Order: sequence, then C-alpha cells, then structure tokens
Amino acid sequence: MKLIALALLLASPLLAFDSSIEVHPDRSVTFRYAAPKATEVSLSGDFGKAGPMTKDDDGTWSVTVGPLVPNLYSYTFSVEGKTVADSLNGRFKPQRTGFSNVLNVPDDKPSVWDRQPVGHGTVHLHEYDSKATGSVRRLRVYTPPGYDAVRTSVYPVLVLLHGSGDNEATWTEFGRAHDILDNLIAQGKAVPMIIAMLDGHTVPPVPRDSPKAAEVRAKNVENFERDLLGDALPLIDATYRTRTDREGRAIIGLSMGGNQSLTIGLNHMDLFAWVGGMSSAIREPETQLAPFWKDVARANSQLKLLWFACGKDDFLLADNQRLDALLTEKNVNHTYVTTDGAHAWPVWRRHLAQFAPLLFR
Amino acid sequence: MKLIALALLLASPLLAFDSSIEVHPDRSVTFRYAAPKATEVSLSGDFGKAGPMTKDDDGTWSVTVGPLVPNLYSYTFSVEGKTVADSLNGRFKPQRTGFSNVLNVPDDKPSVWDRQPVGHGTVHLHEYDSKATGSVRRLRVYTPPGYDAVRTSVYPVLVLLHGSGDNEATWTEFGRAHDILDNLIAQGKAVPMIIAMLDGHTVPPVPRDSPKAAEVRAKNVENFERDLLGDALPLIDATYRTRTDREGRAIIGLSMGGNQSLTIGLNHMDLFAWVGGMSSAIREPETQLAPFWKDVARANSQLKLLWFACGKDDFLLADNQRLDALLTEKNVNHTYVTTDGAHAWPVWRRHLAQFAPLLFR
Repeated sequence: MKLIALALLLASPLLAFDSSIEVHPDRSVTFRYAAPKATEVSLSGDFGKAGPMTKDDDGTWSVTVGPLVPNLYSYTFSVEGKTVADSLNGRFKPQRTGFSNVLNVPDDKPSVWDRQPVGHGTVHLHEYDSKATGSVRRLRVYTPPGYDAVRTSVYPVLVLLHGSGDNEATWTEFGRAHDILDNLIAQGKAVPMIIAMLDGHTVPPVPRDSPKAAEVRAKNVENFERDLLGDALPLIDATYRTRTDREGRAIIGLSMGGNQSLTIGLNHMDLFAWVGGMSSAIREPETQLAPFWKDVARANSQLKLLWFACGKDDFLLADNQRLDALLTEKNVNHTYVTTDGAHAWPVWRRHLAQFAPLLFR
Repeated sequence: MKLIALALLLASPLLAFDSSIEVHPDRSVTFRYAAPKATEVSLSGDFGKAGPMTKDDDGTWSVTVGPLVPNLYSYTFSVEGKTVADSLNGRFKPQRTGFSNVLNVPDDKPSVWDRQPVGHGTVHLHEYDSKATGSVRRLRVYTPPGYDAVRTSVYPVLVLLHGSGDNEATWTEFGRAHDILDNLIAQGKAVPMIIAMLDGHTVPPVPRDSPKAAEVRAKNVENFERDLLGDALPLIDATYRTRTDREGRAIIGLSMGGNQSLTIGLNHMDLFAWVGGMSSAIREPETQLAPFWKDVARANSQLKLLWFACGKDDFLLADNQRLDALLTEKNVNHTYVTTDGAHAWPVWRRHLAQFAPLLFR
C-alpha cells in the first residue's frame, strides 16, 4: 500500500519537478515545462539553438542543452508559438516588452559578474520629463562603493547603453553591471566611476523588416542624442558629484546601443574622450559619422580611447570589421577586439569587464 | 482595387489590432489576445471577475470588462491555463514569480498615484547580505524631493511592505508609492520622508493549502523581523540621513505585509510610534501580539498612531474587524477604516494616500 501511495505521489504532475532548470555537473542544462494538453512547446535562449522539446507520459516537456560556458543566460518557453511565464523561476531579464527568465550556470570560482564579498555600490532609479522626446523617461545611475561616505570626491561618468530588445533596467538586473564594477573596483582593476544607464528607445517600435526600419533607427539615434545631451546628462550632473570634463566621460553600448555610443561619442569628441562599442549595429559608418570624418585629424589627440569589440559568431561581425578598416584607413588610433561568442548577453558582460578597466587612467 | 487592398489589410491578423487593451469613454475596457490555434484563452486581473473570452474569425480572443473605477490594474492572459506574456504591453507589475501586465484607467484629472509636474524624489536599489537569512536580499529606498539639495536635513522613515504575491519592486513599479509621496509632499499634505521597501519573503514558498502554511507564515514573520531590525534598518540608517528615534519611524504593509507591520510594529513600540495595516492578513492577533497585549497599558502613551484599513469586499474583512474589536475591548486608541474595494492594489494606493498624511506630525 505504501508503495502504491509513493508511486501515485511520483506520478502526480504537480510533484514531478520543483525547478524548471537543472544544471548538471558537466554544465549541460535540462529545461522542463509542464503542459499536458499542449501540442507544441519550445525553448529559446541566448545559448544558441535548443533542440525540440519532447513530452513524457505525465505531460512534462523537456530538452537538454549544452554543456554551456559559465555565465547568465536568458530563456523563454513558448507554447504553440506564444511566450509563457516560467512560474518556477523568479529571476527574469527586463525587456522592452515582456520578459525572459534567467538561468545561472556558475563557474567553479566566482565570475566577475557574480556578487562577491566586496564593497557594493548603489543603483538609483530616476524618472524624468525629457524635453527631447516630450515624454517621461527612465534612467538608472550606479554610484560606486564609498560614494556616500566621502562626500567631497567627484567621479567620472560612463554612459552604458542597452540593445534593441532591452530597457534601462537590463544592464543591472541581467547584465550585472553593478556587480562587475564592484568587483573590478575592489580588485583595483577599475577606478571608481558613476554609470548612467538610459532607456535607448525614443520612438515606437517598428518590425525589423519594415521598409521604414532604417529611417526609424536614424530618428531614434537623433532623438536619443538630444535626450542624452540635453536632458539626462544635465540631470545626472545636477544630482551626482560628477566630472563634467571630456576626459571624465565615457560612452559605450551594445548592438543598437553600440550604434548610439559610437555615433554620439565620435561625433562629440568635445564631450566624450573615451568611446566604445560592443557588437555594434553600426550599418552606415560613412554617413553616420560624417562630423567625425570631417574632423578626423583631431581624433588621435582628442580620444583617450576608441575601443570596440565583436564576437566572432556575431551576425554583425562584418559591420564591425568594416568600421575597423575605415578607421585604419584614416589612421585613427583604435582597438578592435574579436572575442568568442555570438550576439548575446554572455558576451557583453565580458566586454564590459574588458572595457571598464581601460577607462579614466 | 483599393477597397480590396484595404479589406485585405484589415483582415490580416498581424494588423487586426496594435494594442491589447482599449479603454472606452465610459471606462469599460476591451482586452484582445491573438491566438488562432488556442482552444481556450482567459483573462484575470485585479478588477474582479472577467467574463469568458470569445474568439472571432481571425483568431482574436476578446472580452470587455467594467466600467472600472479610475486606477491602475494588473491583468494576465492565460492560454489553456498557462499565463502568457502580453507582447503588446511593455508595462508590468513585478511579482514574486512571473509578472502581470498593467492597465491604466485614467481619471479626468490626475490621480494621486499619477506622475504630476511636481518635484520628484529618487528610488534607490540595494542588495545586501542579510545575516538574519544568510542570503542576499533586495530593498528599495525612496528619498523625497530635495534630499540631495539640502544635505543637513534628517528625515523620518516609513517602512512600507508588500503582499505575498509581490516583491520589493512592486510598491514603486506598480504601487507608485514614489509618485503618491511626491504629490502629497508637493501639496503640503505629507511631510518629506524616506520610504524603505523591503522584500517580505524570507522562506521558500509553500502552497496556500499546505498543512505547513501557518507554520511557514509564522517563520517568515520571525525571519523578516530579524532581517528588518538587524540588517535592513541598520543599512538604511548608515546610508541615509534618517531619524532613528521611535517617533521618527512608521511601519505599514498590505495583506501579508500588513500582518508583518502590525505584528512587528505593535510588538516593538520602542522602535515604531506609527503603526498601520492595509487589508492585513492578521489571523491570530491574540498570540501574534502577545508581547503587545502584555504591555498594552503603554500603548496609548507610546503609539502616536495605530491605523488600519480594509476594503468592505475583502476576504480578510472579518480578521480586521476582529482586531478592531480586540483593541476596542482593551481600550487601545486606534483608527479602523472600512473603505470601498476588495483585496487588490487599487485599494492599497488609496490607503497609502490616506495613511501617509497622518504621519510624523
């Protein structure tokens, strides 16, 4: 009788598993989703392509991916093409719309994006009325450890921008920018700095394949530049103890945000002496950087650093190689780094950990 | 030909609607979700019961609810019992697990929870190592307008707690506590104060009908009290310019958080002179408040305010009436308010707007 009760217990779909993700010792990961009535359940994530999910007798769909390189990954389950919430996972990645859940594949020792027993900074949320867009916008500001203790120091500012699927919360909640800086600062590898994380979206979304997509992208960079320079930076400079000289300001972003950081940064060497990009979606560098090319003779004296990186499996690799070639042709000092990885957040955490130590030295 | 093209355009499922929610002039709201292959789609939200959704010829499911009282509401669509993301709505309510989307039904004039053209405070995010729980925990701190400008002022502290389905982000992202205080302060109706919004969960979740539920709830209050008093408040007092006298500290929460605020507040009159609860899940006031009842003679001299409220349609109404009766029987000065509404966030925004003006006077 006891055996039957146990068998019933184990067969109950409610008790079949209590976590949707299981990280195995070899760092392969099994994902599970209970949907007895569904005809198709699939998994996607920033770990590359997952195979098809299969349904077992109690209605649990599962698939195993990897082994994965230690990092944080996002994933979503879809039932018949619709994104569904993973109710067994409280960690999520903020996105422009909807959200993904988060999977941690830990390394044997702590990674630079893991919270470690060091001094911690604070992340501040602001909502502000943007004159540039005529709307209420959000930004997050990181102040480094010690910011509140020593009230006379002023700090350099890194503007850190997200990608097209993200919002102003993604670099902290999922990118762990605050942990990366806490750790680098504690190790003496980066100087204490303030980080400004803006919302990179200033126009309503259009589908990627829309005939208006290029025009809308250009409009977004233009609006965003006016918001950053006319609204957000003045708010930050008025609220925090910031350096406001060009050598105290850096800008970098990823993908869409890399296009914004390179375009705005290089066209405004008067404001930013440190400019970067990660997997940047910079499609028309000749026209977008027209003010920069016109003034390119100043670049080598004005820019303290021009650094950009792209993963070797990134679909934007050719665009980044083209920018590298253009800069080389014009004899502009710059560092272009090809790294492992595709167009995904595990790459950008590592890029930030490479870029931040180079700044404000 | 043009008519045919237009008809085709209108018939396309991709173009059938560009927003999932449509607020009509009478404040009834139509919800739409595209799922041609689904056999059942349903809607739930904190506006009470929605009728069944029906599918039209192009596969769009819809239902109309209301008219609704102006406020912010959360809602989720479910496909065959599984919560799905509304990809047409970027506004969401943070929850303990998963999320809901947010609907705004605006009033003719701005509500107290709406962002208005007044001075704005800042919300700060902290992650801290809690000795009480042995884990990393999160809290949010609101500092009022002017906090950074006048660096000599000290501010009273309101501890503001969420419900069982929420997390430390819910009171700002969805409850709009920062806007409520910005507006009340601008109107001179509340004194400038700091608000501490903690994560009220310190133990893993158990199902509501588990035989261990009561024990787990008690353990959670106990752990949470140790975290609040031993970890979170010391962190806040070390980081912000706070008053640390009992008359400079208030505590209130909703539902599970109302149980926490009443239990911790009344049992620690040495720490909190202002105590409140909203729709509080206080099930065993005799035993939970044992230290308070033992010392009840002190209550009328020590408590500057004991205020709690419950909506008349709330399933916890009887528990709140019972606490009211117990306090009356013991001659403890208190204010018990029965308001409109059920167990839902639209009620709690209004409760906070009623409670905050009473504090620190």
